[in-house]
Amino acid sequence: MSDSGRPEIPPARYAERIDAAARLTASAGLDILLVGVGADLRYLTGYAAMPLERLTMLAVPAGGSPILVVPRLEVSSARSCPAVAGGHLEVMTTDETEDAVVALVERLGAASGHAPADVGRVAVSDRLWATFLLRLQAALPAATFGLASTITRQLRMAKDDDEVALLRLAAEAADRVIGQVSHGRLIGRSEAEVSREIRERLVTEGHELAEFAIVGSGPNSASPHHEPTDRLIQAGEPLVLDIGGALEGYVSDTTRTIWVGGGDPMTGPDPEFRQLYGVLREAQAAASAAVRPGVACQDLDATARSIITAAGYGPRFFHRLGHGIGLEAHEDPYLVDGNPERLRPGYAFSVEPGIYLEGRYGARLEDIVVCGPDGPLVLNRSPLDLQVVDGR
Amino acid sequence: MSDSGRPEIPPARYAERIDAAARLTASAGLDILLVGVGADLRYLTGYAAMPLERLTMLAVPAGGSPILVVPRLEVSSARSCPAVAGGHLEVMTTDETEDAVVALVERLGAASGHAPADVGRVAVSDRLWATFLLRLQAALPAATFGLASTITRQLRMAKDDDEVALLRLAAEAADRVIGQVSHGRLIGRSEAEVSREIRERLVTEGHELAEFAIVGSGPNSASPHHEPTDRLIQAGEPLVLDIGGALEGYVSDTTRTIWVGGGDPMTGPDPEFRQLYGVLREAQAAASAAVRPGVACQDLDATARSIITAAGYGPRFFHRLGHGIGLEAHEDPYLVDGNPERLRPGYAFSVEPGIYLEGRYGARLEDIVVCGPDGPLVLNRSPLDLQVVDGR
Repeated sequence: MSDSGRPEIPPARYAERIDAAARLTASAGLDILLVGVGADLRYLTGYAAMPLERLTMLAVPAGGSPILVVPRLEVSSARSCPAVAGGHLEVMTTDETEDAVVALVERLGAASGHAPADVGRVAVSDRLWATFLLRLQAALPAATFGLASTITRQLRMAKDDDEVALLRLAAEAADRVIGQVSHGRLIGRSEAEVSREIRERLVTEGHELAEFAIVGSGPNSASPHHEPTDRLIQAGEPLVLDIGGALEGYVSDTTRTIWVGGGDPMTGPDPEFRQLYGVLREAQAAASAAVRPGVACQDLDATARSIITAAGYGPRFFHRLGHGIGLEAHEDPYLVDGNPERLRPGYAFSVEPGIYLEGRYGARLEDIVVCGPDGPLVLNRSPLDLQVVDGR
Repeated sequence: MSDSGRPEIPPARYAERIDAAARLTASAGLDILLVGVGADLRYLTGYAAMPLERLTMLAVPAGGSPILVVPRLEVSSARSCPAVAGGHLEVMTTDETEDAVVALVERLGAASGHAPADVGRVAVSDRLWATFLLRLQAALPAATFGLASTITRQLRMAKDDDEVALLRLAAEAADRVIGQVSHGRLIGRSEAEVSREIRERLVTEGHELAEFAIVGSGPNSASPHHEPTDRLIQAGEPLVLDIGGALEGYVSDTTRTIWVGGGDPMTGPDPEFRQLYGVLREAQAAASAAVRPGVACQDLDATARSIITAAGYGPRFFHRLGHGIGLEAHEDPYLVDGNPERLRPGYAFSVEPGIYLEGRYGARLEDIVVCGPDGPLVLNRSPLDLQVVDGR
């Protein structure tokens, strides 16, 4: 977490974030925000807790002091997170044979003077496991439960400069991997083998975690979330590489579709693929260029979709244009039809149209783009024009 | 998934598992089992779905046909999973702008002839996200919700021979990494650097995912779930390596504590550490040796704990003895005080006592053990006796 030279979130910022979350909790009329392991917890405290069957939970009451409940086994790690180390957050430890949910509810009741039966409105983190939520519902029988993202999304969507710097670092690391793999041997190797190489390279290039490495060759390039198989990559076909991982928690996610030529002009891209790729390239560029404050998410989607539709590929682009990115690979805002949310400075998201001809081939291009004060800030630098690689 | 030579779960077994889950659902008086992305889904269908904000859910009604709801984007992957490819499971696709929870509830209602308001008892997978559970609760207003593990644990705890073979393959891969790292350079390298090397080696040795690589040196060896730091490993101190990943979905998890000697007898283990390690070694061996059908989980914990307590280290062993392992790193059964559950053949779990002298050093030893028909089957083969390594 402290590799020198890397941008870092200043520890004091976590206190500001927790304070902001408490204010928003109060103004939303909620009694308490309960945040389990995951991106919300990391955002608010800097604590990258392991997902465990033992309860780890940040409780932010609308009034009163926040508290972090952790299993005793995790207390050293929890104490070293910025929010706790900085003295902004108290830690409550639970023992191995204790019911941590009951212990938390009792502690909150003692702190607030309210009985558990009086707690009215609770927001829980969106990815809290059912095993914890059902126990919380049993322990707070009169409460109504909603999602913490109603609070935290307002904070997390607009990245600050340090977060943008980390997203850029992750994007550039992924770009290097795209470049390395594109210029290496591909022909005769399986998708799974190349996928494994990508995962190793993502780590070598600075990610602490290689989250995904989609490798779709030939007809498999037409399946957007293809699971790499033993199919051997051949000359004369496209290859979709959709790769990413987490670097200091911030996620990279980039897609390039290359053509594996094998050094023979006879196995270069056919006219249909060149046509398809050209349309895709144009749609991706137009949507990226349209990014600025005030533009609605659905309108960015429409910008790319209208170009693809006009070229006759409309039904072949059957997913949304993109998703927010930050401490999660997919987070708010979503660039999807029906989402009227307007961009604000710092919003970060993927712009990733695709065109898929099932049974034949497909292509997708994806950059991470940040909404700047008056235009787009594109974090990836891998070439977007069609690359015909040798692959031998 | 189909690397030749690896053991494999026969596709027909998924149909048997779904049938068994449906029977257990009915006999438990539940109306339906709803399984989101995760180990339960993989166990029942072979589908290693990506955790996404889009709903993927297996619905197993007590009577009637199971159905797998997937976002359209994932349909190719979903169709290639054994349960679907084998014709045992129908797929229902939802579109990008559709409310998938509502679509699922409507489909189930149409299939059963019951209105959503009539659904009485539902079990959801333990790790289902709150974002889905709260929407299900809203869509099924009269239902009471419980956890799917009440059903699936009965199936998943007892590993069959193919699952044991996969667990063994994962354990042996982790053993090789322990051996490689123990015999490599350690002195002067940071915990974080060694942790990164371990993650890369776990993948190189066959894991598709390196899940964790705890490296705790010197005083950090006293923190059981230590997050690797920039601390440089020195001669004359212990090093805890607790590593694991997933191989064909099945998880490895092994811990060895070695002493970094630096080639100098003056920096060998001190008498206190030798004493502590000897006690730990004895406790670990005794608990492993006690494994057989009918033994209670809490009694295995007590076997190890009594040895450690008799040596005066009782309060320094402040976590449970172990956890079940399979498609999850931590799953039922838990070897913990208060768990009277009795072992049955095929139960697989870690046996991992630890002794931690905070501020000074600590040690932990962990093997994966399967309950055989009349005794333990220890999957790991790394030496358990204290290894003093050179580390230069």
